[in-house]
Amino acid sequence: MITVTIIGAGNVASHLYRAFNDAKDVTVKQWYNRTYSTISSYANEVDCIDDLNQLKYADIYIMAVSDDSSASLSRALPFENRLVAHTSGSVSIHDLDKKNQRAVFYPLQTFSKDAELDFSEIPICIEVTEKENLQFMKDLAEALGCTPYKITTEQRQTLHLSAVFVNNFTNQLYRIAHEISDAKSINFDILKPLIMETARKVQHMSPYMAQTGPAKRNDKKTIKRHLKLLENEEHKAIYELLTASIKKTHGQR
Amino acid sequence: MITVTIIGAGNVASHLYRAFNDAKDVTVKQWYNRTYSTISSYANEVDCIDDLNQLKYADIYIMAVSDDSSASLSRALPFENRLVAHTSGSVSIHDLDKKNQRAVFYPLQTFSKDAELDFSEIPICIEVTEKENLQFMKDLAEALGCTPYKITTEQRQTLHLSAVFVNNFTNQLYRIAHEISDAKSINFDILKPLIMETARKVQHMSPYMAQTGPAKRNDKKTIKRHLKLLENEEHKAIYELLTASIKKTHGQR
Ligand SMILES: NC(=O)c1ccc[n+]([C@@H]2O[C@H](COP(=O)([O-])OP(=O)(O)OC[C@H]3O[C@@H](n4cnc5c(N)ncnc54)[C@H](OP(=O)(O)O)[C@@H]3O)[C@@H](O)[C@H]2O)c1
Ligand SMILES: NC(=O)c1ccc[n+]([C@@H]2O[C@H](COP(=O)([O-])OP(=O)(O)OC[C@H]3O[C@@H](n4cnc5c(N)ncnc54)[C@H](OP(=O)(O)O)[C@@H]3O)[C@@H](O)[C@H]2O)c1
Repeated sequence: MITVTIIGAGNVASHLYRAFNDAKDVTVKQWYNRTYSTISSYANEVDCIDDLNQLKYADIYIMAVSDDSSASLSRALPFENRLVAHTSGSVSIHDLDKKNQRAVFYPLQTFSKDAELDFSEIPICIEVTEKENLQFMKDLAEALGCTPYKITTEQRQTLHLSAVFVNNFTNQLYRIAHEISDAKSINFDILKPLIMETARKVQHMSPYMAQTGPAKRNDKKTIKRHLKLLENEEHKAIYELLTASIKKTHGQR
Repeated sequence: MITVTIIGAGNVASHLYRAFNDAKDVTVKQWYNRTYSTISSYANEVDCIDDLNQLKYADIYIMAVSDDSSASLSRALPFENRLVAHTSGSVSIHDLDKKNQRAVFYPLQTFSKDAELDFSEIPICIEVTEKENLQFMKDLAEALGCTPYKITTEQRQTLHLSAVFVNNFTNQLYRIAHEISDAKSINFDILKPLIMETARKVQHMSPYMAQTGPAKRNDKKTIKRHLKLLENEEHKAIYELLTASIKKTHGQR
């Protein structure tokens, strides 16, 4: 049985708590948050604390706290030579205080407190400072039904950057489509099946192969009409830049 | 029983043929394509033709042909005052020859010949020149299990433009993430669950509410590091433009 202590109670920590709690080979030993009220309603199922000095031994301490607080919080931990991990896509493993053995347990997914998530579909990116902890970290990911990937610091930073493109930037394109269609009293619901299918398509086909549309065909007439339809200069600039990017990818220059 | 004749045999026409063939209230009367070999393997289940003069009466003729050929093809049809529709997001309904009653049956989805699609999830955008055909067009969409939406020409063009943002441009962001991660020997599979979840999230939440990440938080340190990681000038420009767009949307300026 693996024992885990969760530190933090935000989006990631709450999902991790629930997932570890459900995993049959894992026990959540304690749940720490600096603000007790956030976790107090769980006090009947787990040892909830808001004082680092009350931390007991666990096989791993997972800190799912804001990027800029993990370094100082790792220094404040009142023990040494135990295994401490953070969950960030961008914080260096070396930012964790070296008095403990260090690891990264970065779940490549977007978490919101309320949104249900199937943990078994989440890739977990793993880094360790001590090689002998690698297998343990993999076992931990697998205990959640996740797929572990051993990666380097550089790869993790690149993944985090890629995640910005496929998640934040994609979501902003959805937002722009929402604005454009709202302005003409079009129900955004009409676009939702297309959004799903666009994501579904690249699960089994490369984005290169999946591309279609006016930019790929270099259909100048449609591109011109679209640019005329766009009233917002920023939307126009995005249209032009992404159209040029698609053309370049597909040799239309 | 509604009788439908399909004209064309590309991505959309092949899916429409299969869907109408499966619909219990619809019979496919004939299937026309200028290139007979594309449809010949269906000759045992439907009357396949490559000569417009062999067209028999049907309640509707659906032309799913290239945007730039629908006008001339509609003129070449050897009959008058019947119902003729095209399936395009951008061609005007008035491009169809007015010797026939005209309609638009625009399925807002991305079609590839091989990819399986659940037709029941496809919104069908409908336009008609004769008001009395509106209910028929709606019935036709519903016979496929689709949701019909009556829209104007301007709305259809705006939807087509919005579709470019959520489909073609989003897919190009996937492509860029593929390039960035490939360059560091990262398996693109790691990003696939995030791609799915990003699309899933906006099915029940507005893109505005769903946004997260460094741009929304105005996390200057991460943005700077990401820009340093990007080696390709075009990727950098896209990062900067979409980051600015997110900041603007979320009041970070
Ligand atoms: N959200 C995602 O989609 C996602 C995905 C992958 C990885 N991550 C990473 O996971 C980590 C947590 O992200 P999150 O979204 O869960 O953050 P979050 O929802 O903002 O939660 C942050 C947590 O950190 C605690 N905290 C903040 N400053 C602290 C300090 N100085 N001392 C002690 N605790 C402090 C907060 O405590 P209070 O409750 O007292 O405020 C809160 O419990 C980050 O490294 C993030 O990069 C996030
Ligand atoms: N693909 C999509 O995702 C999608 C989505 C919504 C709407 N649409 C619209 O649906 C229509 C068809 O698109 P598609 O993707 O199915 O096209 P496609 O796969 O390229 O197929 C085009 C069809 O048109 C025929 N054709 C082309 N020029 C012709 C001409 N001069 N005379 C007679 N037939 C001609 C082709 O015949 P041959 O087989 O002989 O070449 C082929 O059967 C377009 O208006 C498009 O805008 C497409």
